[in-house]
Amino acid sequence: MKPLDAVIGIDLGGTFTKIGVVDKQGNMLMLDRFPSRADEPFEYFLEELQQSFQNIKKTLGEHINLLAIGVGAPDTNCFTGEMENPPNFKWGEVVPLATGIQSVTKLPVFVNNDANVAALGEMIYGGGKGMKHLVVVTLGTGVGSGFIVDGKLHIGHHGMAGELGHVNAVRNGRLCRCGLYGCLEQYSSVTGVRKSVRILAQETDMPSRFRGLSLEEINGEEVANAALAGDEIAKEAFEIAGKLLGEKLADVVAFFNPEAIFLTGGLVKAGKLILEPTQKHMEQNLLHIYHDRTKILISDLVDQEGAVLGAAALGWENIDN
Amino acid sequence: MKPLDAVIGIDLGGTFTKIGVVDKQGNMLMLDRFPSRADEPFEYFLEELQQSFQNIKKTLGEHINLLAIGVGAPDTNCFTGEMENPPNFKWGEVVPLATGIQSVTKLPVFVNNDANVAALGEMIYGGGKGMKHLVVVTLGTGVGSGFIVDGKLHIGHHGMAGELGHVNAVRNGRLCRCGLYGCLEQYSSVTGVRKSVRILAQETDMPSRFRGLSLEEINGEEVANAALAGDEIAKEAFEIAGKLLGEKLADVVAFFNPEAIFLTGGLVKAGKLILEPTQKHMEQNLLHIYHDRTKILISDLVDQEGAVLGAAALGWENIDN
Repeated sequence: MKPLDAVIGIDLGGTFTKIGVVDKQGNMLMLDRFPSRADEPFEYFLEELQQSFQNIKKTLGEHINLLAIGVGAPDTNCFTGEMENPPNFKWGEVVPLATGIQSVTKLPVFVNNDANVAALGEMIYGGGKGMKHLVVVTLGTGVGSGFIVDGKLHIGHHGMAGELGHVNAVRNGRLCRCGLYGCLEQYSSVTGVRKSVRILAQETDMPSRFRGLSLEEINGEEVANAALAGDEIAKEAFEIAGKLLGEKLADVVAFFNPEAIFLTGGLVKAGKLILEPTQKHMEQNLLHIYHDRTKILISDLVDQEGAVLGAAALGWENIDN
Repeated sequence: MKPLDAVIGIDLGGTFTKIGVVDKQGNMLMLDRFPSRADEPFEYFLEELQQSFQNIKKTLGEHINLLAIGVGAPDTNCFTGEMENPPNFKWGEVVPLATGIQSVTKLPVFVNNDANVAALGEMIYGGGKGMKHLVVVTLGTGVGSGFIVDGKLHIGHHGMAGELGHVNAVRNGRLCRCGLYGCLEQYSSVTGVRKSVRILAQETDMPSRFRGLSLEEINGEEVANAALAGDEIAKEAFEIAGKLLGEKLADVVAFFNPEAIFLTGGLVKAGKLILEPTQKHMEQNLLHIYHDRTKILISDLVDQEGAVLGAAALGWENIDN
């Protein structure tokens, strides 16, 4: 029997790396994971990868024909294949990610920003199938975004397009880890919602179970549950997150005019708590010609291994072209 | 001698329409203009166009082979070829612009938004030659923009991408003619600068020759001259225009990562008065990875018939594909 063509998708996270074997139709033939070892030298990551890769080849054997590897990772430059100053990885200022993975696997390697890869995955395997213009927004520890323009990932002149986390949402607002004030990420990420809870508990007398807790003690999932159960401060924190996200998405619509905007990441588990204020404030800030024309949707891949599928899509896209 | 291939570019403005014959290299072989008659029925415009078109054919005769017509006009939908609810034209809610022009000229007609057409012109004939990612911002009576992504005009899912005039620049700011509050157009257009002068004259005691004048009496060009001569209020009005434009352009850079942003339109005649605050405030609002990487330039075509050249470029682009 002729072996099945497949690519490997790698979702490189700060704690774990997930690695999947994916066929052209998006079927996950095998999934493995290993610790990323972000606090140790890059070579340790490559050793873990090598073990996992050998395991995959042993398991799937002659049944598959591996064509390429796609990698979604934070702070990567798709032109050089390098990670640049990754704040959450102690792998150096410039990490030769693509060449490192290539040396271990002897396969062509294509890397891109994790949010860009999520956008590709949504278009090829998710709710964006058949769409030519879409945006994916990742609301996790930080805020990221990937833009599909005319059926292609939009990477821009320096490969740095699609940055939604560090655009201004509040003039002279919260100090961000990037050095700017009032970045969207400070309000509309899991971290942002936790900060809002902490600040509202300090500055208002709204009733809340989070009163008196430090930021470290405030857990994102608990905030969502508390909001659903009626906790005033938790509800207000999601309202702030959605309002500011909606206002910036109104700009995204005016600039890009996408068919749909997909939300994914940890914050999305709160469902309508984040979706409703986002939709409302986006619509309120749109010029009339855009009203009721751009869908905000929860990503189809949010509960699946969307990041691995997206990375695989990057691999397929590059070998197909 | 074999006739020279050429297209017609039409720049349809609220007062005058300019019509030019342009060869593939961007040479303007002939230029004519006629009143747009925006306050009379659309048929009167078509009659003026027909006269001008006959005049062109008579003058250039067998020397040229006309292939197509490109049209840049406000409020046009490039998918339908219609103008939709043009506020400055009394031609009805839906104006069959493309089919009307086609019926008069018997040539293939391609229409697009005037700012989009300016972006095409900049890429093909202006300072954006060879660039794959660029943005053109028109700062005239209103604010418009056109985005080139990967060497192509980005029009979006409904043909409505590239709207910079009606994104929010100031929360709960000036009421805009579109019904929203705080639109960029209310501050960073010629009209916006005139309004700033009027408001600063009312609300501050800064010395100014514009004190006591009504909005109608405040002329954009005079404001620029007064600012250059040191008028405090005029200088501050340009500072506001550049600050808010720069802040929004920082978002544009983070989303699109263009190689350059070109400014054109009446406000640009003020030169560094608008350029310097725009650059400064854009840089201040950029994430560090974008610093000093995106040029803000005055359009190469600002003193030429850039809008006619851009419309011709739209014609060439469509017959070449």
